[in-house]
Amino acid sequence: MTPRQLRLNLFVYPGGHHEAAWRYRGSAPERMLDAHYYQKIARRAESEKFDAVFLADGPALADNVRYASRFRLEPFTSLASLAAVTERIGLIATASTTYFEPYNLARLFASLDHLSGGRAGWNIVTTGAPQAAGNFGLDAHPVHAERYDRAREFVEVVTKLWDSWEDEALVADPVSGLFADTDRVHPVEHHGRHFRVRGPLNIPRSPQGRPVYVQAGSSEDGRAFAARHAEAIFTAHQTLASGQEFYADVKRRSAAVGRDPGRLLVLPGISPFIGATEAEARALHDEFNELTQPEYSLQMLHRILGLRLTTAQLDGPVPRELIETGGERGNGSRFQVILDIIDREQPTVRQLLHRLAGARGHRVVVGTPEQVADQIQEWFENGAADGFNIMPPWLTGGFDVFAEQVVPLLRARGLFREEYEGRTLREHYGLPRPEAVRPVPTTAGHGAG
Amino acid sequence: MTPRQLRLNLFVYPGGHHEAAWRYRGSAPERMLDAHYYQKIARRAESEKFDAVFLADGPALADNVRYASRFRLEPFTSLASLAAVTERIGLIATASTTYFEPYNLARLFASLDHLSGGRAGWNIVTTGAPQAAGNFGLDAHPVHAERYDRAREFVEVVTKLWDSWEDEALVADPVSGLFADTDRVHPVEHHGRHFRVRGPLNIPRSPQGRPVYVQAGSSEDGRAFAARHAEAIFTAHQTLASGQEFYADVKRRSAAVGRDPGRLLVLPGISPFIGATEAEARALHDEFNELTQPEYSLQMLHRILGLRLTTAQLDGPVPRELIETGGERGNGSRFQVILDIIDREQPTVRQLLHRLAGARGHRVVVGTPEQVADQIQEWFENGAADGFNIMPPWLTGGFDVFAEQVVPLLRARGLFREEYEGRTLREHYGLPRPEAVRPVPTTAGHGAG
Repeated sequence: MTPRQLRLNLFVYPGGHHEAAWRYRGSAPERMLDAHYYQKIARRAESEKFDAVFLADGPALADNVRYASRFRLEPFTSLASLAAVTERIGLIATASTTYFEPYNLARLFASLDHLSGGRAGWNIVTTGAPQAAGNFGLDAHPVHAERYDRAREFVEVVTKLWDSWEDEALVADPVSGLFADTDRVHPVEHHGRHFRVRGPLNIPRSPQGRPVYVQAGSSEDGRAFAARHAEAIFTAHQTLASGQEFYADVKRRSAAVGRDPGRLLVLPGISPFIGATEAEARALHDEFNELTQPEYSLQMLHRILGLRLTTAQLDGPVPRELIETGGERGNGSRFQVILDIIDREQPTVRQLLHRLAGARGHRVVVGTPEQVADQIQEWFENGAADGFNIMPPWLTGGFDVFAEQVVPLLRARGLFREEYEGRTLREHYGLPRPEAVRPVPTTAGHGAG
Repeated sequence: MTPRQLRLNLFVYPGGHHEAAWRYRGSAPERMLDAHYYQKIARRAESEKFDAVFLADGPALADNVRYASRFRLEPFTSLASLAAVTERIGLIATASTTYFEPYNLARLFASLDHLSGGRAGWNIVTTGAPQAAGNFGLDAHPVHAERYDRAREFVEVVTKLWDSWEDEALVADPVSGLFADTDRVHPVEHHGRHFRVRGPLNIPRSPQGRPVYVQAGSSEDGRAFAARHAEAIFTAHQTLASGQEFYADVKRRSAAVGRDPGRLLVLPGISPFIGATEAEARALHDEFNELTQPEYSLQMLHRILGLRLTTAQLDGPVPRELIETGGERGNGSRFQVILDIIDREQPTVRQLLHRLAGARGHRVVVGTPEQVADQIQEWFENGAADGFNIMPPWLTGGFDVFAEQVVPLLRARGLFREEYEGRTLREHYGLPRPEAVRPVPTTAGHGAG
C-alpha cells in the first residue's frame, strides 16, 4: 500500500510570492498579462505531478500597486486557458461569496469543471479587502460575521445548483428524441435570508459533481465554516506548534459535525528560498529583502494591523501598544499570525516588514534543498499538514529550483507521487465524488448552512 | 486597394443551429460538454480565416431542453479555453447586462482580451428569457424598457472601468521600483440610477482597450442602443427588403448621434443547407425537418408569440387573430420577424414550425454552394449586410461543407480574405482601438448613456 502522500499545490502569484519578486533579475514583470507565461508555469507544475495550481483573487485594486504586482488576471478565464493546455493538474479559482451572484458562479465553475475534465476547485472567500464594497454599490464592506452568514447560504445555494441535474439526466438519444430527461432535472427553489434562487442550473452535472471546496480563512468563523464545508484548507502558520494546533482543531471540528476528518485536507502555505548552502539561501533571501520598498509594506501593515507608521520609524520597535486586538480587524486570521510574530520575535518595524515581505504572513523557509524537504516532512509527519501550498518567491525560476532540487528529495523519501494516478482534482486529493443531494425547498433561514 | 470584404462569424450552437441537429447522423451530441469538440470547431474556423466565433448565452435553463440541446457551457470559460488553442480568431461572448454585476463582467472581459491577445467581443444582451429572474432573486423579469435603461448605464460603467487604466500606467520598472504609475490609474466614481461603482478596475487596460461591442436586439430600443453603442449588430431578417430597411435605419441612426456609420457593422444570421444540386439541398433540409419534434417548437412559439397550441392543430392555419401584437412581448425583434413570416406566407402551424426549426427566425438558405454564395453576395452588395453570422445547421459537418464549398467561391469573387491581416478582432473588423475616455464623475442619471 502506498504510504500517505503529500498534496502539493503551486500558488501562482503574478511574478512570484515575494513582494519584490517583480524587481528580481530572474523575474519577467512584462509577462504578467501574457497567457503563455501562465501556461508555461502550469505545464511545468503538471510535469512535476503537482495536485493543482491555485489562483488568489479579489474584486478591487490594491492601493499599493504602485510598488508591487498587486493585480492579477481574473481566475475563471485564466484557469480555463490553462485547462486547454494541460491534462491532469487541478485548477483552483478563488471567488468571493460576497461579490458574486450564486447562479453566475455556479455556471462558471460547472463549465470550468466540464472544460477541464473534472479539475476545478473553488477557494471560497468572503473577501477581506474593504475597498471591494465601493465597486459593487455597497456603502460599506459587510462585517466579518455577516460575510460568513452570507457565505454559508451561498455555499448551500450553489451546492443545490450543482446537484440540480442528476448524473443520468443528459440522455441525448437521437432515436427517441429525448435530449434531457427533465424528470431528472430539479428546480432548487431556494428561499433564504440572502438569496432566492429557483434553478435548475442550465448546465448538466459536471465530472466532479461539484468543484473541490477549498477555504482559506482561519478565524473562528473561518474554522467553523471549514469544518462544515471545506475539503481542503489553505492556512498560514509560522511555527510547527501553531500548525499542529490548527490541524487538530479543524479535524476535531469536522468530526464533531459528523464528517470524516480524512476528507478535510490541511495545506499550509510555504515560501522556500533555496540555496546550495544555507549561507547561499540566506544571501538570496537578503537580496530579495533589499529590493523591498517600505512604502509598500507599511501600507500592508496598516491594512492588516491598523498601524499607520512612517519610514522614519523603520528601525524602532513595533508599537505593540497601538495595535487594537478586538473588533472587526481582530477577526482576521492573518492579523493573529502577525501579532504572534511581534510577540514572539520583538522585531523592529523593518525586521517585521522583511518577515512579511516573503509571503505576507505565510511561512518562509530559507535553506538547502534538504532543509526545505526536512521542514515539509516534519510538518507532514507531525500532525501539522496533509500537504502544502508552495509559494515560490519568484516565478518562474523560484519554482524551477523547488521542482529540480526539492521534489526529487520528497520522492526519494516516498512522500510524493511519481505519476498521477487519477484524472480529476478529487482523485488527486483522495476525495470522493459527492452524491447529488436532492434539495428540499427551504422557506426560511438557510437550512443546512 | 482591397475591395470591401465580408466579415464572417461562426455562430457556435452546441450540436448545430437546427433544433434537430443533435438527432442528425452527422452530429455528436455526446460531445457537447467536451472542450476538444469546441476547440476543433474554433480551429477549423480559424483555418478558414473567419473573423470570430460567437457564443450565445442566457442565465436560465430553457423549458424545452427535453427535446433539444438547449443548454451550453458558460461563454467566458469556453472562449478562454478556445483562446489558448487559437492565435487569430475573434472570440465573442454573450453576457447579460440584467444579470451580471458590472465589475465582475469588466474583469472577465479584460482578462479574456489579455489572454487572447486582443480578440474579445461582447454581445451585449438584456436577456429575453423571463425565467432568468427567478435565478437572481427577482420577483419578475424587468420589462423591456427597464432592461434597456439598465443596459445603457451598464455599458457606461464598464466602459469607464475598461478605460480606468491609461495605456502607459503599467510601468514595471525594476530599477526605480515603480510598478504601476497610480497617477495614471483613475477611479471611475460612477453614481447612477442602477449602479454605484468606485473603480478603478484591477486589471490594466487590455490589448483592444475594450472588447468589441456587439448587440443583437432589433427592437426600437435595440436599434437606438445599437446606433449609440454597438460596433457590430447581429440581426435576423428573412427578406432582402427587411435587411435593407434595417441596415439603412441603423446606419442613419448612428450617423445621427455623430458616429461614423462605417464603424457599425451589420451582420445578419444565415443558416445554409447545402447540396450538390438544389434538389439535394432540399432533401437535406427535409431530412432535418423530419427529425423535429413539434412539442419543442410549440413551446418556442408560446414563448415568442404567446400562442399555446397543441399537436392536434399542426395542420391547420396559424391562428393569427390570437396573437397579441402590443405590450411587452411585441417589443421583441424576433416576434416581428415571425409575425412577418405568418403574414407573408400564411403557413400551417407545421409549416411555420419547420420555417423556424432551422434557425429560430434567422434566415435559412437551401441550395447549391453557388446559390448560397449568390445570396451572401446579393445582401452584401445591396445594402443589407457587411457580413454574416454563419449558423451551420449541424456541427461539425455543416460548417465543413460551408468551408469547403462556399468559402472558396466567396474568395474567388474577391469578397473574403485569403489570410488574416491583423491580430485582434478590431483589426479583423476594421475598427479602431478606442482612446480611453477619462471619466467625469457622475452624481445623477447616467450621463453619456
